[in-house]
Amino acid sequence: MTSSHNLLDIRPVTQLTNAKFPEYVKQPNSKLHNIVWRSPLQNIYLVKKPWNYSVRDAMLQFIDHIHKNYPAVNVIINEHVADELTHELQTGGGAKILDPSIKHILYTGEISDIVDKTDLVVTLGGDGTILRAVSCFSNVTVPPVLSFALGTLGFLLPFDFTTAKDTFRMVYESRAKALHRNRLECHVLSNETIRKYQSDHYIHHNQSATMVHAMNDITLHRGSQPNLTSLDIYIDNEFLTTTTADGVVFSTPTGSTAYSLSSGGSITHPLVPCILLTPICPRSLSFRPLILPSTCHIMIRLSELNRNRSIELTIDGIPQRDLRPGDQIHVVNEKGTIYVPGQHEPPTTLSKQEGSQNKTTGKGIWCIARSEHDWTKDINELLGFNSSFQGKKQYHM
Amino acid sequence: MTSSHNLLDIRPVTQLTNAKFPEYVKQPNSKLHNIVWRSPLQNIYLVKKPWNYSVRDAMLQFIDHIHKNYPAVNVIINEHVADELTHELQTGGGAKILDPSIKHILYTGEISDIVDKTDLVVTLGGDGTILRAVSCFSNVTVPPVLSFALGTLGFLLPFDFTTAKDTFRMVYESRAKALHRNRLECHVLSNETIRKYQSDHYIHHNQSATMVHAMNDITLHRGSQPNLTSLDIYIDNEFLTTTTADGVVFSTPTGSTAYSLSSGGSITHPLVPCILLTPICPRSLSFRPLILPSTCHIMIRLSELNRNRSIELTIDGIPQRDLRPGDQIHVVNEKGTIYVPGQHEPPTTLSKQEGSQNKTTGKGIWCIARSEHDWTKDINELLGFNSSFQGKKQYHM
Amino acid sequence: MTSSHNLLDIRPVTQLTNAKFPEYVKQPNSKLHNIVWRSPLQNIYLVKKPWNYSVRDAMLQFIDHIHKNYPAVNVIINEHVADELTHELQTGGGAKILDPSIKHILYTGEISDIVDKTDLVVTLGGDGTILRAVSCFSNVTVPPVLSFALGTLGFLLPFDFTTAKDTFRMVYESRAKALHRNRLECHVLSNETIRKYQSDHYIHHNQSATMVHAMNDITLHRGSQPNLTSLDIYIDNEFLTTTTADGVVFSTPTGSTAYSLSSGGSITHPLVPCILLTPICPRSLSFRPLILPSTCHIMIRLSELNRNRSIELTIDGIPQRDLRPGDQIHVVNEKGTIYVPGQHEPPTTLSKQEGSQNKTTGKGIWCIARSEHDWTKDINELLGFNSSFQGKKQYHM
Amino acid sequence: MTSSHNLLDIRPVTQLTNAKFPEYVKQPNSKLHNIVWRSPLQNIYLVKKPWNYSVRDAMLQFIDHIHKNYPAVNVIINEHVADELTHELQTGGGAKILDPSIKHILYTGEISDIVDKTDLVVTLGGDGTILRAVSCFSNVTVPPVLSFALGTLGFLLPFDFTTAKDTFRMVYESRAKALHRNRLECHVLSNETIRKYQSDHYIHHNQSATMVHAMNDITLHRGSQPNLTSLDIYIDNEFLTTTTADGVVFSTPTGSTAYSLSSGGSITHPLVPCILLTPICPRSLSFRPLILPSTCHIMIRLSELNRNRSIELTIDGIPQRDLRPGDQIHVVNEKGTIYVPGQHEPPTTLSKQEGSQNKTTGKGIWCIARSEHDWTKDINELLGFNSSFQGKKQYHM
Repeated sequence: MTSSHNLLDIRPVTQLTNAKFPEYVKQPNSKLHNIVWRSPLQNIYLVKKPWNYSVRDAMLQFIDHIHKNYPAVNVIINEHVADELTHELQTGGGAKILDPSIKHILYTGEISDIVDKTDLVVTLGGDGTILRAVSCFSNVTVPPVLSFALGTLGFLLPFDFTTAKDTFRMVYESRAKALHRNRLECHVLSNETIRKYQSDHYIHHNQSATMVHAMNDITLHRGSQPNLTSLDIYIDNEFLTTTTADGVVFSTPTGSTAYSLSSGGSITHPLVPCILLTPICPRSLSFRPLILPSTCHIMIRLSELNRNRSIELTIDGIPQRDLRPGDQIHVVNEKGTIYVPGQHEPPTTLSKQEGSQNKTTGKGIWCIARSEHDWTKDINELLGFNSSFQGKKQYHM
Repeated sequence: MTSSHNLLDIRPVTQLTNAKFPEYVKQPNSKLHNIVWRSPLQNIYLVKKPWNYSVRDAMLQFIDHIHKNYPAVNVIINEHVADELTHELQTGGGAKILDPSIKHILYTGEISDIVDKTDLVVTLGGDGTILRAVSCFSNVTVPPVLSFALGTLGFLLPFDFTTAKDTFRMVYESRAKALHRNRLECHVLSNETIRKYQSDHYIHHNQSATMVHAMNDITLHRGSQPNLTSLDIYIDNEFLTTTTADGVVFSTPTGSTAYSLSSGGSITHPLVPCILLTPICPRSLSFRPLILPSTCHIMIRLSELNRNRSIELTIDGIPQRDLRPGDQIHVVNEKGTIYVPGQHEPPTTLSKQEGSQNKTTGKGIWCIARSEHDWTKDINELLGFNSSFQGKKQYHM
Repeated sequence: MTSSHNLLDIRPVTQLTNAKFPEYVKQPNSKLHNIVWRSPLQNIYLVKKPWNYSVRDAMLQFIDHIHKNYPAVNVIINEHVADELTHELQTGGGAKILDPSIKHILYTGEISDIVDKTDLVVTLGGDGTILRAVSCFSNVTVPPVLSFALGTLGFLLPFDFTTAKDTFRMVYESRAKALHRNRLECHVLSNETIRKYQSDHYIHHNQSATMVHAMNDITLHRGSQPNLTSLDIYIDNEFLTTTTADGVVFSTPTGSTAYSLSSGGSITHPLVPCILLTPICPRSLSFRPLILPSTCHIMIRLSELNRNRSIELTIDGIPQRDLRPGDQIHVVNEKGTIYVPGQHEPPTTLSKQEGSQNKTTGKGIWCIARSEHDWTKDINELLGFNSSFQGKKQYHM
Repeated sequence: MTSSHNLLDIRPVTQLTNAKFPEYVKQPNSKLHNIVWRSPLQNIYLVKKPWNYSVRDAMLQFIDHIHKNYPAVNVIINEHVADELTHELQTGGGAKILDPSIKHILYTGEISDIVDKTDLVVTLGGDGTILRAVSCFSNVTVPPVLSFALGTLGFLLPFDFTTAKDTFRMVYESRAKALHRNRLECHVLSNETIRKYQSDHYIHHNQSATMVHAMNDITLHRGSQPNLTSLDIYIDNEFLTTTTADGVVFSTPTGSTAYSLSSGGSITHPLVPCILLTPICPRSLSFRPLILPSTCHIMIRLSELNRNRSIELTIDGIPQRDLRPGDQIHVVNEKGTIYVPGQHEPPTTLSKQEGSQNKTTGKGIWCIARSEHDWTKDINELLGFNSSFQGKKQYHM
């Protein structure tokens, strides 16, 4: 794992001290929290968009800057990036970027080890890079995220890379502010598990499910199947509706500018505690998008009307395993749900959270923000919200 | 004010003891609160849709039922209704409904006195009746509201009038559950007030505004003006957009099934703490509806581009005074706002609430609910949400 | 009427020879027709946006250019403009624009006389100016229209005023191409007329109606009324639906980028022969906009549910008289309708056109076009159709 | 191919006389044409939804009825249905339906032979059955279509099967009316073909393409690909837009109630000559659906931005071969296009039709209609168009 190079020294991440999280201090007259490091920021996990020369060079610039100016800060990268950089430096591509007068130590290892050591995540790329970086921290406390936009559109508050030096110093010196974003939990309960539980009178907590966090959205879609999906949707154990549609998106407010937007959903400020239910091409004139409380428990059952057809489950744009008729999906906010008792028992992974809707410690993702008004600026500048029509202004022949 | 009749005895409401409010007790595994009367429910204010024979007869049935079965409960009506009933009974219309063997005492008086005495509001009619009833309690604690649907569509959780006896007993015996609905505050600051403040260097708290509560929505519309409205909208003191549109609706989640729905807004569960901003016929392809945090401070300024044209302000369907170019509207949730400092000072009525976003005591309206799942049922049964297309099923010639 | 000034000589329009229309010659591989003057273009009617200095100066530039370069061409203006120019030149404002070395003769008179003499309409302003100019020619053949955009957004194919010299020469020399746009006819039949007809057994052709042409759209709207409109709509004598809405727009394809667009209608190419029915803020989840054949006969009856409330009728943005319950509106394309017999007799103004759906001579408006692809260009450049989201592109710190 | 059974006698379809088409006579005051058989209707091609007991029994009822009452009429079925019926009768299932006293002769053979012999297509099933039946007649004149709805939703004017006896007699006796529906042509030109043509300076008519007719719609969709499609769309050789979307639908008015409706398109009457362009989940706020003239030529080029990803092409719900970057699709109405010359040469299959926009003989599909008002009835009864919200009406306790 440890590789040696005349410029680069790659060491095991396990050598580092364990992660120490900052405090997030509520400010009066502000929608943001201050990020305060009680002990100095030490280990940063640097993540980048893969296979892109410009982004790799930017990463080397950033590493060089940290090593020169923050000698006590350790830079962690994942193993793929470690290989990529090593290979790149051996073939000479990025050598001119790193200052040869100092020793460039990088740390790497298995993801689970990286997760244990990371004080701050720094991403270089677009929203996809942030979503991938964060997905590694699915069941543990997520360190704050500082993201730099490199060549791609981003709604997750990224900074211009041109500001990287000042921005990092601001974070390092506990002068940065962060916006809190909650994720959804997606619990997949297969038909087989449900049947086994029902037939064997297993006790409740044996009904296990796979759980994945979603920062943006959970999508169920027919994909390449010619037939429309038929999904029975329950809210708090009450039947809501059956879809006849291409699919449906369950989105966080953060994800409201992603696939939900394309499907006709409203643009939602990240601080609204809610879950968006947006249909995808419904075979109905009256399937208006819904805004549901963040405390609700959503259960989706793949109707037997889907026969043998599978349905595609995608979380934050990453395809998961296909679902089959009879499978159940349970969607809740990671902060917990007001569980209203009823017919459909939640999986044990979820049931642990019953009644715990105030359990916020260590939940959600703190994204370092440019200003109080990032959202207002972004929907105007990035989305072209409410663009006016363009007239002409010549009065001379 | 006190009128005398052989069946009806109308007395001043001031004779009654002052209002006593119930406690609202949070229940585990429930979205609703229990309504618990620590001292017995005494004074109910009965409100009805005007000018409708069937509704008047229903009111008499209800009065008769209360007088026979709850002798300690006093029934309050407003003066218009008192006149209507008196006239009606003199001409004989409703006489057969009231039991002549008992004395029917009703209380009335000025609205401000009624407000002081009311323990429970009971409405007979549709949503309009509820909105009117509640609007009397604009700046004070609102008693719980029990509403019966009579002949009109209602989204505000009304009960069938056929269940009136059982439902009232349930409320009386502290067995009812209620849903909490927050209102918006609409502060109107005229151009003149703003100028005076600016030119005279008045201190901040002299900038007074008119304030009205909205249970459903605050609408700005061009009405019969041929020209589109031009409104500058600021969120938390940051410029959001300028409308070129027929108008704009600011809606509570409760109002999301009213005018906001007609204008293309999402259907929003009443427990989502948010403000819906929905454009009305915008002259733009990209003015998607927005869902804003309930803690935000919205300021709308009538652009000078509107020249001398007035704009109509409507709150919960009730026309307010027209607005003129330069006027400002400040919209916040009644629970308070996170005031982010900036260019546009809020009016003093609003500024009192700065930083007080947890001030929930006595705020909002407690609506007695049929069940945990009223909303899910209502969007299906009343709105025809996600109606499927209808096929045919004959296989014989 | 004839005024005299040292620069300007204003004479009666009746002195001019009668209008001579060009031929419109179909071209292969083209969506446009060539405009060919069999006898030279003589009389142009110059129309402008009122009360705007820049537009008035542009008009003087254009007049000067015509008088210098096309001595045989007569310029007609309406009486208001004649007064405005006379006053302006006396007070000196525009004097410097007109060449004092030649005599500037302008013609004016009553609109009906202007209509009789006009070979070509030239408009200076925006879409509103074109709509007003064309509305004078409501029941007669409309001369071709050449429009120059001055300071306002236009979708009706206007030319940049900077190209005015070349563009006019192209038209004059029969090298211009034109797009044909059909209008709608709006026949208003009052409740009184209908009753009189029914009670007196009047013969069919006594049922007279007011008729107005619409180039863009016919709108029925509640205006400032708090109650929603209830309109019964029939297509070809078959009941279609009853609106519960702010109103409804009936639009030509030309008008599809005007109010219909704001209300959610599709963008429709002007060469699609159809009528758009677009609801305005309907109180329904399933009132999708409709595209109807141009040959259909639409009848709208103001339901008695509207009680005593009036409804506003607006044609091409110009308010007409308010409508009352019981009134009928009949909407057809000016080319005629396939009249399907049924319950609701059309007014005589309309009935003359039964079965005449090929009667195109002299119908519609020929708008001089910039190119084959004006529509594609305009929806992109003016409307910002399908704007992509904007990313960022910096790779250096 | 000819099978023998004691009830059923299956013979080669080639024994029948060639197809004879009826005349379609325009009627005054009607949107429909009369179907008049100059020589008696002889050969009917009976098509059914596969794998459904109820539909098979209905087919046997219909066959029995024809054989008993129209001895001169020959019933054609395809080979799969022939096998299904033979097997069914041998195992006894449908034996009780067919009258054993007469000989039941059915004709079958290859589809191309069936096509040559069919005077009338009769379908039993839903819209899918009609679309499949009609797709066999892609490049030849289509016989009139009589369809009966069996258990599935249909928008293509199907009759109730309970009326089958009367309806067939009406058709047989030339008393039926029909609605004309035009189809789209979809010409697929592969990247390889285009390159070969360009590099070898092949003459224009060597650029061959695959052509398929669409009665409802032509859909391009990413299917299961995680990345959005990037399609460059040209109208009449002018660049319109590039999609960043799940896909796009090109629909006939007939198809406007199918996938286009789900994607947000307007409901379009089948007699409007137009092509609907409706985006599927576009990554843009301003991609409003478009209504294009039926005479336009649409070219879609799969941008190289799609890299190696394929895009799914579906016509009338039937998947076609996947498309690759560089491939072109040309879409025109089957009646022809006004070809506007430009950069993108159409394929030869399409170019034959240049300038021929009046070539209607034998084009389109004549669907036998129930009444003048089928469309109005169907959008109300099947789609639930403009459903009103439901109130309550109880006035007694």
